[in-house]
Amino acid sequence: MTTQQLLEQIQLKKSFLCVGLDVDLNKIPSHLLATEDPIFEFNKAIIDATHDLCVAYKPNTAFFEAYGIKGWQSLQRTIEYINANYPQLFTIADAKRGDIGNTSSMYAKAFFEDLNFDSVTVAPYMGKDSVEPFLAFENKHTIMLALTSNEGAFDFQTLSVNGTELYKQVLETSKSWKNSHNLMYVVGATKAEYFTEIRKIVPDSFLLVPGVGAQGGSLSEVCKYGLNSQVGLLINSSRAIIYASNKEDFAEVARNEALKMQQEMEEILSLNV
Amino acid sequence: MTTQQLLEQIQLKKSFLCVGLDVDLNKIPSHLLATEDPIFEFNKAIIDATHDLCVAYKPNTAFFEAYGIKGWQSLQRTIEYINANYPQLFTIADAKRGDIGNTSSMYAKAFFEDLNFDSVTVAPYMGKDSVEPFLAFENKHTIMLALTSNEGAFDFQTLSVNGTELYKQVLETSKSWKNSHNLMYVVGATKAEYFTEIRKIVPDSFLLVPGVGAQGGSLSEVCKYGLNSQVGLLINSSRAIIYASNKEDFAEVARNEALKMQQEMEEILSLNV
Repeated sequence: MTTQQLLEQIQLKKSFLCVGLDVDLNKIPSHLLATEDPIFEFNKAIIDATHDLCVAYKPNTAFFEAYGIKGWQSLQRTIEYINANYPQLFTIADAKRGDIGNTSSMYAKAFFEDLNFDSVTVAPYMGKDSVEPFLAFENKHTIMLALTSNEGAFDFQTLSVNGTELYKQVLETSKSWKNSHNLMYVVGATKAEYFTEIRKIVPDSFLLVPGVGAQGGSLSEVCKYGLNSQVGLLINSSRAIIYASNKEDFAEVARNEALKMQQEMEEILSLNV
Repeated sequence: MTTQQLLEQIQLKKSFLCVGLDVDLNKIPSHLLATEDPIFEFNKAIIDATHDLCVAYKPNTAFFEAYGIKGWQSLQRTIEYINANYPQLFTIADAKRGDIGNTSSMYAKAFFEDLNFDSVTVAPYMGKDSVEPFLAFENKHTIMLALTSNEGAFDFQTLSVNGTELYKQVLETSKSWKNSHNLMYVVGATKAEYFTEIRKIVPDSFLLVPGVGAQGGSLSEVCKYGLNSQVGLLINSSRAIIYASNKEDFAEVARNEALKMQQEMEEILSLNV
């Protein structure tokens, strides 16, 4: 998918919501556990109930890998279901991968070719040659960690380097990499005040923003500092939507939560972009 | 496996060799491609031919994920084969994972429980709460990236922070984390001169050292600066061993390459530890 197509979806739906699919068998409605593939059935119901309110889905690979081969099958069925039924949705493999060049090439093949995701999240620690293999894929997007939403973000990401902070250096350096136009960045919502500085470095890039909802980030604060003229934000919500109910009405309740966020976003867009 | 059991294996075999299983279908002997599971058949033959010369195997998850569900099945069969037939071997899931706490817990479950690896490699960028969930597993080991063997290592890892370098800060900070006795570190062989400084920070930790062989690192240089009184090194070689021949004799030739490294290690151990 091109960035332009993503933007068109945002404009059409008046939403820049990404729904995170972090499916934990201990948290889903118990009636699903009797089905052959509870993770997929859960995802399918969530996707069918929310696809017109969001522009992206973000399966978190850890929650599939934890169930071994069955989990990987659920991941494959989930992405195939989205691509077959809602091809206009932007898909993110939240995998946080990154390794030396020939290994990153294999990860890129796994997520862009074998599973056919539109994008994958990667970690920057190993530098240029660990990320460039992902960037080589046309109309695929590589979403690199910059400033994350967790407490540990302050261990290294905000350390002072070269008179700036590490996450800013990561942003700056990455702009010089080959095919850097295929980069987006993860910036946590729990640090809304940082968006002003980040927008000085990457004014035009899409930012994937976790941390709204369960982790305590504020949508309006993030938008205040993070929106650009092309929207430029994908706001992820996982637990606050998918686990809003763990009863038989879970998909309907998830839709209501997604709708609330979409409506907030519509209002923000009407005022700002 | 405990660290003590790993050390006993090293002393018994006079080897601290780790064989990396980075299996690319384009590089393995063509006669294996007709089998039902070529990746597993290749690994099995390599393992059977080298298990008495090495102390660890390191499947690289990217090379399995690239083949989707079939690849994940090959990974599962490989680790099950090692655990069933050579339980004294230390197993490393080279996965470079790391995410917010609840997600890292799922990755830990995937590799320590579902697949039953002894250890997993992780990336440090997201800090303490992204690594501690792995450290909570008793007699399991978490091998964190410190200074990697690739060119991109110099993009961020060696940047100056707090009057030191980022990778040193990563090492230093990680020592304060809960259950840090379960930490080992990745330090690339291509930077042998750095081992002296690293040993000042983590004198007792095991270091997993990629980069000998195909990437150009020197075994004797690494040992000169990196060995400690409990050996403290696991030297990985992947391509130089497993792809030494791509003909029907591949396992035998791999054994010869592993034997050369084991003999070098035996000599080094006889002089140093």
